Amino acid sequence: MTTVARREARAANIMRLRRLGIDTYQEPVVYMSADCPVCRAEGWRAQTRLVVSHGRHSIIATLNVTTGNLLGPDEASLSNVAWALLGAREGDEVTLSHPAPLESLSHVRAKVYNQRLDEAAVHAVIEDIAAGRYSAIHLAAFVTACAGGRLDVDEVVALTRAMADVGDRLEWGHAPVVDKHSVGGLPGNRTTMLVVPIVAAYGLTMPKTSSRAITSPAGTADAMETIAPVTLDLLAMRRVVEREGGCIVWGGAVRLSPADDIIIRVERPLDIDSEGQLVASVLSKKLAAGSTHVVIDIPVGPTAKVRSPEAAASLGLLLSRVGRAVGLEIRLSESDGMQPVGRGIGPALEARDVLEVLQREPSAPVDLRNRAVHLAGQIIEMAGGVPAGMGARVAGEILGDGRAWAKLQAICNAQGGMRQPPRAAFTSTVEARHRGRIQFIDNRRLARVAKLSGAPAAPESGLELYTPLGTRVEAGQPLYTVHAAAPGELAHALAYAEENPDIVTIAEDS
Amino acid sequence: MTTVARREARAANIMRLRRLGIDTYQEPVVYMSADCPVCRAEGWRAQTRLVVSHGRHSIIATLNVTTGNLLGPDEASLSNVAWALLGAREGDEVTLSHPAPLESLSHVRAKVYNQRLDEAAVHAVIEDIAAGRYSAIHLAAFVTACAGGRLDVDEVVALTRAMADVGDRLEWGHAPVVDKHSVGGLPGNRTTMLVVPIVAAYGLTMPKTSSRAITSPAGTADAMETIAPVTLDLLAMRRVVEREGGCIVWGGAVRLSPADDIIIRVERPLDIDSEGQLVASVLSKKLAAGSTHVVIDIPVGPTAKVRSPEAAASLGLLLSRVGRAVGLEIRLSESDGMQPVGRGIGPALEARDVLEVLQREPSAPVDLRNRAVHLAGQIIEMAGGVPAGMGARVAGEILGDGRAWAKLQAICNAQGGMRQPPRAAFTSTVEARHRGRIQFIDNRRLARVAKLSGAPAAPESGLELYTPLGTRVEAGQPLYTVHAAAPGELAHALAYAEENPDIVTIAEDS
Repeated sequence: MTTVARREARAANIMRLRRLGIDTYQEPVVYMSADCPVCRAEGWRAQTRLVVSHGRHSIIATLNVTTGNLLGPDEASLSNVAWALLGAREGDEVTLSHPAPLESLSHVRAKVYNQRLDEAAVHAVIEDIAAGRYSAIHLAAFVTACAGGRLDVDEVVALTRAMADVGDRLEWGHAPVVDKHSVGGLPGNRTTMLVVPIVAAYGLTMPKTSSRAITSPAGTADAMETIAPVTLDLLAMRRVVEREGGCIVWGGAVRLSPADDIIIRVERPLDIDSEGQLVASVLSKKLAAGSTHVVIDIPVGPTAKVRSPEAAASLGLLLSRVGRAVGLEIRLSESDGMQPVGRGIGPALEARDVLEVLQREPSAPVDLRNRAVHLAGQIIEMAGGVPAGMGARVAGEILGDGRAWAKLQAICNAQGGMRQPPRAAFTSTVEARHRGRIQFIDNRRLARVAKLSGAPAAPESGLELYTPLGTRVEAGQPLYTVHAAAPGELAHALAYAEENPDIVTIAEDS
Repeated sequence: MTTVARREARAANIMRLRRLGIDTYQEPVVYMSADCPVCRAEGWRAQTRLVVSHGRHSIIATLNVTTGNLLGPDEASLSNVAWALLGAREGDEVTLSHPAPLESLSHVRAKVYNQRLDEAAVHAVIEDIAAGRYSAIHLAAFVTACAGGRLDVDEVVALTRAMADVGDRLEWGHAPVVDKHSVGGLPGNRTTMLVVPIVAAYGLTMPKTSSRAITSPAGTADAMETIAPVTLDLLAMRRVVEREGGCIVWGGAVRLSPADDIIIRVERPLDIDSEGQLVASVLSKKLAAGSTHVVIDIPVGPTAKVRSPEAAASLGLLLSRVGRAVGLEIRLSESDGMQPVGRGIGPALEARDVLEVLQREPSAPVDLRNRAVHLAGQIIEMAGGVPAGMGARVAGEILGDGRAWAKLQAICNAQGGMRQPPRAAFTSTVEARHRGRIQFIDNRRLARVAKLSGAPAAPESGLELYTPLGTRVEAGQPLYTVHAAAPGELAHALAYAEENPDIVTIAEDS
């Protein structure tokens, strides 16, 4: 740049990008020298929120200033996620500016002070969230203010509509379009990877988007990703569904209810799942995906997400009322949430369970199969013209004669090619300390073992549980095997298991 | 390092520090290469929370991983605040480890779900906050869950005690020890810098710690810092008070109620001030400072922090009840919060007002003087054995005969030396658009002009308001002058002032 060009660039707050290679996970950060003319003229300091624009794209990022010679006076850098969001490359120019005041925060404050939010207020908040204008602190305040039963039905309806409205929408030109959702909390509950091929093989349309893990060791998208690509854009997703009748893709890649994916980022460290937020999260995705009929599986158990029949009834009622208000037909299906489903907990290990069921291996976990057949049957009854009570039989036949397995392979291939789930390099087995009968399994702490072993970020990690409730065991008999990609993670998981021998409680024989 | 030494260091998760010079403001961040053996063995990824230990000090920091060659496989770096907290230097070794699970978060979740917190629960939360174990997301959730009137009196008492208990405590061996606090929201209300020298000159002990600005253009610590050092440790603070009877130091540097300073960091971006949090914040500082008698000034006005007599009564009642429970004698003093106090808004400009009052200049703002004399009088009556109704007269005499001015100089010198407040390089004046009478002043938007001009970070910036309520003005007469350290900030402040001509409302003559 000439001196004149440089002066003009500064006047317009234009900086040249240099890559430092700093990964802040999901948080967009922009780096500039504290002494650079732009920061000095604008009075920008560390933690200032800035608009960073690059061509047609712009994001809001938090400023970190550099105090040494890491960056020159005309240079800016970005955290890795910000490079990706902007589609920017080394040497590109970006323009920096003050963001407009975040007016919708007044609604968050109103909610903190127990006021009801109307449709316009909810929409304004969700629009700002989807546009990335809320910092983690703002998001945490919004999530907290909405938790603890502080949203009434109208507010949840408004939240559901707003979350669907601010993203893309799919339309299929025909009904029914079906979907399912399992309220989480039950490790290994990978029925989606069975229900979609069964229902699609039956002939229904099921455009399934799944999430990655929030607080669990694996989400369906994490498990599916170990056997096929799941990061498809909306066009690619539509092609798969039009060809095969169904898909299982990652919701985060197709801007269906994009605010949800942002909100989840703070729910994870807070470990808060509010009922209203949960209902809006689930139903906004279905609404945006163009679904008409949705079966919702609610596992109930003392260490599942829903802990009592009363809580299930309350959640079910809210789901039904909000569903009706936004035009979705909802069928609820409570299930036993006392223990993990299948053997595997962790992305690859859960995918292996699914493949065993589809391939009708004798070792396939029966509970996972039965749950999937039940849910697929509900969908087929609800939307497929099959009489009540006959759906499970139809679903079982589709699974039993190999049509579901053929369909999953076809779906995986349509999504970009099927592959084998990875295997962990390090394993270690936890054994029964004494003989007896398996009396209780703590899903939450068992999930914690799997997370300490590296799941879901390391897809091969997690654990295999061999002893469902009621199993008789001898001292020294394997209870579960921990899988890990790194020795440090294996050690952390085992240390936690060692400190918590009652994760799997063995009742002494009387 | 030899290969063997390097291998042992890795096994113990020891890394060598290299300075990158990244300023994240208050957030401790640790940087390591994603490919480094420690991250790979431990399974650590961006956003993992880690304990970083250096000698006797340890902090919890958020991991940002570097993906290029910014850091070598044995190197770690820190954000500037983390270097300072650890007292670490380039080339020092740090040990990295997993933090213990944050058990106290279960109490935050309980509060989100509307449960009452007992003393032990509140203490556990505050202890973890003071130790820096809460991320910004956790802090935001706690602040939000406690806002909107969700803390009862017992919870506020528990919060006050816990906040005082987890930090240092001062004891003076005699009573009374006096203090004052003004509930914020009124720009320019720098009475503390007058009350302390008056009361100390009278002979009472007043160990005043003040805060920096939270959401305002200047805190008392910011203003005081323009004429003397305020970052004193507890020992230095005690020496000043023992010598001069009073001090005005920054509360953030002396660990009196240290959790408060951390909580404030998220209250600022959220712009949430909960009544319970406010009372605990104010009273825990007084309790920790060893005070026995406290006068609390509550300015009331439509754009002050406390907007109505009802809100003032509610806050006053909570202050009195919690004060009594923790053993503090409280006297409340409501004042007019309709307009800014004095002329200056911004650290240096407010300090200038204070100096004019002390030096008895004819131009000194009368309102600031009168408020300070009133408050000092209340303290002298409450704790100094002066009959009711006579305190203000005694205070006025101490101000009028120069004893207060001599005392402030002595205090400044004891704190490290008195200096002149800085002057801004750039100023511009906003004029009346038409003739008339000043009818209304919007404190909040006027404060915003001062903040856009760079206050409080640039201490010389802010504004001088010439026209209090009721002033008659001609078209073109100066209303206020904006001061800024940089032309960009001056421009932003003026643009905002231009868009908001009704910040100062002029009623046309009828």
